[in-house]
Amino acid sequence: MKDLLNKILADCKEYTKYGSVATYIPELAKADPSSFGITVYDDGKVTSAGDAKVKFTAQSVIKPMILLLALIDRGLASVRSLVGVEATGKPFDTFNYSDRALSGEHINPMVNAGAIALLTLIKGATYEEKFIRLLSFTRQLSGNPNLDVDEDVYLSEKKTGNKNRALAYMLKAYGLIECEVEEVVDIYFKACSIRVTTVDLARIAAVLSLHGIDPETKNRLFPKEYGRYVNATLTICGMYDGSGEFAFRVGVPAKSGVGGGIMAVVPGRVGIGIYSPALDAKGNSAAGVRALELLNRELDISVF
Amino acid sequence: MKDLLNKILADCKEYTKYGSVATYIPELAKADPSSFGITVYDDGKVTSAGDAKVKFTAQSVIKPMILLLALIDRGLASVRSLVGVEATGKPFDTFNYSDRALSGEHINPMVNAGAIALLTLIKGATYEEKFIRLLSFTRQLSGNPNLDVDEDVYLSEKKTGNKNRALAYMLKAYGLIECEVEEVVDIYFKACSIRVTTVDLARIAAVLSLHGIDPETKNRLFPKEYGRYVNATLTICGMYDGSGEFAFRVGVPAKSGVGGGIMAVVPGRVGIGIYSPALDAKGNSAAGVRALELLNRELDISVF
Amino acid sequence: MKDLLNKILADCKEYTKYGSVATYIPELAKADPSSFGITVYDDGKVTSAGDAKVKFTAQSVIKPMILLLALIDRGLASVRSLVGVEATGKPFDTFNYSDRALSGEHINPMVNAGAIALLTLIKGATYEEKFIRLLSFTRQLSGNPNLDVDEDVYLSEKKTGNKNRALAYMLKAYGLIECEVEEVVDIYFKACSIRVTTVDLARIAAVLSLHGIDPETKNRLFPKEYGRYVNATLTICGMYDGSGEFAFRVGVPAKSGVGGGIMAVVPGRVGIGIYSPALDAKGNSAAGVRALELLNRELDISVF
Amino acid sequence: MKDLLNKILADCKEYTKYGSVATYIPELAKADPSSFGITVYDDGKVTSAGDAKVKFTAQSVIKPMILLLALIDRGLASVRSLVGVEATGKPFDTFNYSDRALSGEHINPMVNAGAIALLTLIKGATYEEKFIRLLSFTRQLSGNPNLDVDEDVYLSEKKTGNKNRALAYMLKAYGLIECEVEEVVDIYFKACSIRVTTVDLARIAAVLSLHGIDPETKNRLFPKEYGRYVNATLTICGMYDGSGEFAFRVGVPAKSGVGGGIMAVVPGRVGIGIYSPALDAKGNSAAGVRALELLNRELDISVF
Repeated sequence: MKDLLNKILADCKEYTKYGSVATYIPELAKADPSSFGITVYDDGKVTSAGDAKVKFTAQSVIKPMILLLALIDRGLASVRSLVGVEATGKPFDTFNYSDRALSGEHINPMVNAGAIALLTLIKGATYEEKFIRLLSFTRQLSGNPNLDVDEDVYLSEKKTGNKNRALAYMLKAYGLIECEVEEVVDIYFKACSIRVTTVDLARIAAVLSLHGIDPETKNRLFPKEYGRYVNATLTICGMYDGSGEFAFRVGVPAKSGVGGGIMAVVPGRVGIGIYSPALDAKGNSAAGVRALELLNRELDISVF
Repeated sequence: MKDLLNKILADCKEYTKYGSVATYIPELAKADPSSFGITVYDDGKVTSAGDAKVKFTAQSVIKPMILLLALIDRGLASVRSLVGVEATGKPFDTFNYSDRALSGEHINPMVNAGAIALLTLIKGATYEEKFIRLLSFTRQLSGNPNLDVDEDVYLSEKKTGNKNRALAYMLKAYGLIECEVEEVVDIYFKACSIRVTTVDLARIAAVLSLHGIDPETKNRLFPKEYGRYVNATLTICGMYDGSGEFAFRVGVPAKSGVGGGIMAVVPGRVGIGIYSPALDAKGNSAAGVRALELLNRELDISVF
Repeated sequence: MKDLLNKILADCKEYTKYGSVATYIPELAKADPSSFGITVYDDGKVTSAGDAKVKFTAQSVIKPMILLLALIDRGLASVRSLVGVEATGKPFDTFNYSDRALSGEHINPMVNAGAIALLTLIKGATYEEKFIRLLSFTRQLSGNPNLDVDEDVYLSEKKTGNKNRALAYMLKAYGLIECEVEEVVDIYFKACSIRVTTVDLARIAAVLSLHGIDPETKNRLFPKEYGRYVNATLTICGMYDGSGEFAFRVGVPAKSGVGGGIMAVVPGRVGIGIYSPALDAKGNSAAGVRALELLNRELDISVF
Repeated sequence: MKDLLNKILADCKEYTKYGSVATYIPELAKADPSSFGITVYDDGKVTSAGDAKVKFTAQSVIKPMILLLALIDRGLASVRSLVGVEATGKPFDTFNYSDRALSGEHINPMVNAGAIALLTLIKGATYEEKFIRLLSFTRQLSGNPNLDVDEDVYLSEKKTGNKNRALAYMLKAYGLIECEVEEVVDIYFKACSIRVTTVDLARIAAVLSLHGIDPETKNRLFPKEYGRYVNATLTICGMYDGSGEFAFRVGVPAKSGVGGGIMAVVPGRVGIGIYSPALDAKGNSAAGVRALELLNRELDISVF
């Protein structure tokens, strides 16, 4: 496996030049576009190659964890009252003109509005408590008690995150959330700024591949059906507008983030974490997607 | 004229039952749906009928004044860099998904986003100063130095105006405004809550009908071309999605507000103010639109 | 007036280089982009300058005549059951996906779908008869009994007009028309291919400016309210997505066609025809729009 | 298995009352809404329950076969030049207004426009030949040499299929197809009218579950990657706007048709065919979807 991963990294290395690092959050622009690392977590066995232990911020890769914890804390019905599952485009057509009521059916848990809405479902007397629970849960899934927040990225997001504030006010205007907007977006920015490595992502993915079983302790961390729900959602819309293409080329549930990470779940088999911050036009790690495509050719990981 | 206005009110009275008062701002729901008044301002001569002196909040009827003052303070080029003139629907299709850059071209000055953006152009060291200039300007146009803010409506709007906050954060996210969102929406709520009567609206409309000439002092209050710009804009989109229908049935520039007011400009001739808070499905005063239609039949006010 | 028109043509001449001739219909691509002519029809007095007598095809400028004849033949209620009056954007969002029923409310008479639908309302046992009535009506309005069809353009449109066939089948699928698609699009192509000069357009515009009165015979050709309806419609959406800009810069009802013609109506005053086939980005004659803007500065033709 | 299927049919029977049969094609309205049948094809072993041998028309269930044969005949690059793979909503926003060029990227192979476009790729000197190849291929996949066309449904579709004609003309207008519209829609209507049973669908699904291997002869009928492509596409958008919900509740690639059929592929395991013509709000067989959900609970067929 080690040799295979090294070979794949070498074969895909040039793809790191085919994209560019995210710049809309100033701190993200500092990433080294040539970084490239991968980890496969297979039944307790961890195999890495390249920059597998470089830390980067989870960004949207944290969304499945928000969804999972909301499911655990409030159950499926509450989650479904806030977010839908369809990939079909536009959550709200016009905003101030037509005043069509926005409903949860049109909000996808893998986009910002959905993730912000779901944060309000996580238990906790304060928003700080909700965040601490999310961080603890993510630490538990990753088996890494040292996961922390990249303060610079967090402050950078907080400073420039007006689009997320707009989304949150819209959710509030339609009665989907009731909290103070600044409180919920604050922990959203923090959640996106949680620092991970490919090893962390691979281990989280391994739990999802086992539908909730901790691969080391063999404890069940969440019900199987929640794992199915998350994996299905990732397949439909985990890779933004490239989800269909990814389903064909790789064929496994996965979530990418603009920080350059991809977490890929091979149900019943392994968890994979990848990092390469040069993004393609759809916002997915260019070399990361290519590496997963080659991995599928070698290991036939596609569920289809 | 007095007889004509009384006859029209009588003929349209039943239309006050064909709509319902706005309820999305709790304070507005308190309006009496049977109220109905009209004033025509003709070359210094004021003719009123019905509840012409009942006070109500301007709501969207203040938008032309915001546009005018922004034009006066910053000129056409600055205004056009923030707002467009086309009526064509949707200012932004998807918001968080497609990340198509929002530009001023897609924002209409007669919808909330455009009016909020234009408020930032009004001169003033603070937002309170900007608002005081807008209030003074509106007093000047109306010839009524006693125009003031309905504090209850203002506080009600401030409390429930999250959609406007969402719009303002979106404008900020795309670099169209730079101020603190709460500051600009605060004076937007105040501006919408300026209390007027049909007499006030009729006199403001008279100034617009004279393209900037004060009908009493004969002083020029703003350049003719700004009057043309505002009148054209009102024709294209002053009556929301009913602007085309209104152009056919009445045929003059007009602006309605959810408070129940309509300000109608008959270029070169008269200014008209109407109040009747029962709104039709498009958000325009039901009896008010009907009264203007009858007035057109009698006085042939259509510019077409 | 003659001197004024010559001066305006000279001043705007360079604008003929700011656009390009339509190419989507091969025959239209043969037009000379430097052609430029104008005619003003004022109370029986015809003043022309430049290429005022060059023949070109009416294209969309025929749409107001289709609307008028449909009104005359079937009345307002029938017309309104097929087409709306609002300019607000999109008539149907998705077509095969969402299967939202298409209704006349969403179809504008100044776009192809609306004009095709309205052709079915014109009286005539056959579609050829309907077309002959439209041609006769247009001849009557223009006072030119020699108006005919440009056979080359007609055949070129017929060959390449698949988008119009698509629109017609969509209208049929939603029950808005019932005829054979090929029959109605055939006369639509013919109608667009009627050959006119600026003199013809100016005289037709003069009839509209008089709301139906023939400027020579003083006979009423159609009811005043139909003239108002057409003029209002032209103001709202006669210049495509540039209608708002045009309302501000020129301020009169007008219709442009991709053949390079513009017909502009100054209600109660004059009719204007312009020809210059180099089109701006919105599909309107670039030099033509500029000439009307200058004419407004000189003669204050704006209705606003 | 037989007992399980009978139990599931009994448990879901009431769901046949929760939907209604398609009526937009008059012939389809004649279906018996209480019909309900299922077949599982497992390694050559066929197990059926209920109305498993009732014939119904494939309708959209034929789309995967069109996609497969286009892939076989022209390869992936040709197919991808005509159709995309994303589920994200709208293939074309405005049609006649904005004139944004339509490209294959926006057309999904599981909606009508995509299927019509792909029919043109199938080899054959005439459209009749193309259809015969499609019918033969479908017979081969189903192992049923007697599959034929329901002439009544075909003629009914041909008579009322104007929306499909509109789509085909639009494809032609944008240069995506070049053939005569009536020729290609004619074989589209025929293709949709191919009569199948749940046994046929289960066997076709079995071939897809084996990625191209005939379960009886063990011959390879098409390359593995084509099977992956089709299965991925079915997952993303095979169940219309209910694809996300279906991914969560059932978790396998599937295609439904308005005739009441569902073909479900359990990769590497089995093929399933279901028939129950009462459709839910999204156009999928109501009882069919429910049956698959129960089957997943019992047999854990989800790939996620």
